[in-house]
Amino acid sequence: MRAVILAAGAGTRMRQDLETPKPLINLLGLPLITRNILSLRACGIDEFVIITGRYRQELENYLGDGKKHQVKITYLHNPDWQLGNGVSAYTFRKIFQPQERFILMMADHMFNLKDLQAFVAAAKANDAEKILLAADRRLERVWDLPEATKIIAENGLALKLGKDLQHFNAVDGGLFAGNELLLAALEKAISQENYSLTAAINFLAADGKVKLHFLQEDWVDVDDLASFKQAEKILLKSLLPPKDGFISRTINRKFSLPLTKVLSKTVLTPNQITFISFLVALAAAVAFALRRPFWGGILTQLTSILDGVDGEIARLKFLQSDYGGLFDAILDRYADFFIVLGMACGWYLETESLVVFLIGAIALSGLPKSMLIKEKFQALTGKTFVPWLYDGVFRYLPANRDGRLFLIMLGGIFNLVPATLVVLAVICHVQAVARLLMLRKLI
Amino acid sequence: MRAVILAAGAGTRMRQDLETPKPLINLLGLPLITRNILSLRACGIDEFVIITGRYRQELENYLGDGKKHQVKITYLHNPDWQLGNGVSAYTFRKIFQPQERFILMMADHMFNLKDLQAFVAAAKANDAEKILLAADRRLERVWDLPEATKIIAENGLALKLGKDLQHFNAVDGGLFAGNELLLAALEKAISQENYSLTAAINFLAADGKVKLHFLQEDWVDVDDLASFKQAEKILLKSLLPPKDGFISRTINRKFSLPLTKVLSKTVLTPNQITFISFLVALAAAVAFALRRPFWGGILTQLTSILDGVDGEIARLKFLQSDYGGLFDAILDRYADFFIVLGMACGWYLETESLVVFLIGAIALSGLPKSMLIKEKFQALTGKTFVPWLYDGVFRYLPANRDGRLFLIMLGGIFNLVPATLVVLAVICHVQAVARLLMLRKLI
Repeated sequence: MRAVILAAGAGTRMRQDLETPKPLINLLGLPLITRNILSLRACGIDEFVIITGRYRQELENYLGDGKKHQVKITYLHNPDWQLGNGVSAYTFRKIFQPQERFILMMADHMFNLKDLQAFVAAAKANDAEKILLAADRRLERVWDLPEATKIIAENGLALKLGKDLQHFNAVDGGLFAGNELLLAALEKAISQENYSLTAAINFLAADGKVKLHFLQEDWVDVDDLASFKQAEKILLKSLLPPKDGFISRTINRKFSLPLTKVLSKTVLTPNQITFISFLVALAAAVAFALRRPFWGGILTQLTSILDGVDGEIARLKFLQSDYGGLFDAILDRYADFFIVLGMACGWYLETESLVVFLIGAIALSGLPKSMLIKEKFQALTGKTFVPWLYDGVFRYLPANRDGRLFLIMLGGIFNLVPATLVVLAVICHVQAVARLLMLRKLI
Repeated sequence: MRAVILAAGAGTRMRQDLETPKPLINLLGLPLITRNILSLRACGIDEFVIITGRYRQELENYLGDGKKHQVKITYLHNPDWQLGNGVSAYTFRKIFQPQERFILMMADHMFNLKDLQAFVAAAKANDAEKILLAADRRLERVWDLPEATKIIAENGLALKLGKDLQHFNAVDGGLFAGNELLLAALEKAISQENYSLTAAINFLAADGKVKLHFLQEDWVDVDDLASFKQAEKILLKSLLPPKDGFISRTINRKFSLPLTKVLSKTVLTPNQITFISFLVALAAAVAFALRRPFWGGILTQLTSILDGVDGEIARLKFLQSDYGGLFDAILDRYADFFIVLGMACGWYLETESLVVFLIGAIALSGLPKSMLIKEKFQALTGKTFVPWLYDGVFRYLPANRDGRLFLIMLGGIFNLVPATLVVLAVICHVQAVARLLMLRKLI
């Protein structure tokens, strides 16, 4: 299935604020149109048709043939782009293949990846007698409602569309699954000198041929500076992974998202950020060993925060990789090891006692157990280890990484290193034994 | 697909040596017929028809309805079992369903699981115009050739079968994929007062309707005490896992297989053996801590050997489980931890130096890295981590568990604990870093 992306307009409202052609405006590290291409690629689409107009050269120069993003891009130019977006969409007829179904998308709309995936799946299952239109019926969540195209929806079909409808119950998302019906409707509208896409869709809606697919997550039509800021906000929020430790969720993400916002605009890769996080852990270890627990604690929490940033940047810029996951997992284990070793050393230098040696060693050995059990479980069963499903009441132990590092931070800043080591030694092993006992019944 | 198991005979040759009905003779912890049922279950077959004769009651009492092995067992009794095995096989006509295809097997034959799996797959793909017969053309490997049924084979078909053929190029394995053709041939043979299965097969062979499936691994028809011993030998050999560390392969398995032979006859479960192995590791740790390195070393190697036995017993008795794999993996990590901690303690008690503390900690932290990377790799990619594929030249480092424990054994018995700890600290981390570097290019 090919995707047709409309990128013909001048984006005048946006241009008052920014210099770049609107589809090329950099949103947290990626131009709007590149984000849409990579998002659709993640939905399994790898052929794109980009309809250009005002910024033909800029777009062709920037995106090229698509090879750098492992997709194929074809360009169609619409010299009459000023007439309306219906004329731009109709340009696609030149290379339309009989019975073809395609995705039609605006270069400057931004959707949640989950919504796009669901829409593409629905598009593939859609029958040839209707077109599919992404719509939002959560009116209170729609950004800039006055500017949006409204829809009167009934039984999952659009009856009428228009910007100035008085009564409506949904909003047009500007994302379509089209076929020959759509091109025929565009031809009819243009022959009546009606050059907007909405006019063509209205012909189909009148015949009951516009099926609606409802969006579940926030999206935005990036039109001006305010909507650009809103897009940034929505995008950052979408980076939070569904499974996240308590400390991560309530503390770390508050810091990591703003950091991600800043770092997304740099060329730093996720693996480089993983490595920086590791260096910060080393600094924490040195601070503990030199008996500067306060700074050890602070640096530990910083490494915990940075541990979130690498993944956020990877998801943001479509840079996720198996190797990145492995590199992060192993470097995190080393980071934890050095921090706890630093704590134990600091304490040992004060007391020179065998007890310290033993407690330090037990704590150290506990650190990787959480990950070991999770990964072995996944490797064996092919299922993801879900802590709140398998850990029972022990899910409240701060024995996952975010919890452990948070404990160390507290232990450092309140100068309670020995007690922290004892607590770590206990909780890591209690969690490991509890998991073995729970899983015995469950797998 | 149902499997029909012939268990009607008296097993007179065997009965001279043993008291039990032949199908119920215990071969390394499981009766012959139970092993065949569980083996076929592992090939995806869960409905069995057992043809009884001489030992109807004993078999029905022992096996019941099959629920305890999660299969369904139906019994058919052949009062005329003394006439010949063709009459027993023909009993199946009473519950044969039109167009049904079935596996026909002797209760007292033992095949390698891989051969059975390949045969069942071939049986499913077999066309309805022929029957399939498992045969062995590796004549030099056939056990008790004089007693075997010989085959003249050509182009993958059996031309003629018989015990006394002078010229032959294959041997009948007594494992069939049958259909209505087989029952028709049995009817014809019996009507001519020819009561052996071989007679019926010969009718089909004459029509070119007996396709041969060649066995790859050793098998045996358990007929007398000598063939029973041979079955034990083949079965033990089949327990060796395809991927095995160097020390495991060359040293540990030499001890673990005899141990498995003994322990298979007890009620010890694989998880209990895992736990015993862990207790031996604790004893090794105590020996090291009390500065009895020789005994520490010996006990360490014993724990390494026992680490093989649990898996062998699990495979032998069809007791493999995801939980067993997890339990073993985590308990092994604890065992290693205690052993190395014991070594470090023993050394520390002599010197009381920070250097010991650091080296011990670094060695301890290195122990779980080998497994961590392997499991994370598998969880991420869904592929198995194959050391000789991914480790490059570093596959010669004794950093896997069998190698590590062997080093500790050497360090113990030659009283070189400090040097061993240093070597462990180095090799575990060198392997971890090397793996990260290698995998960077490969995944």
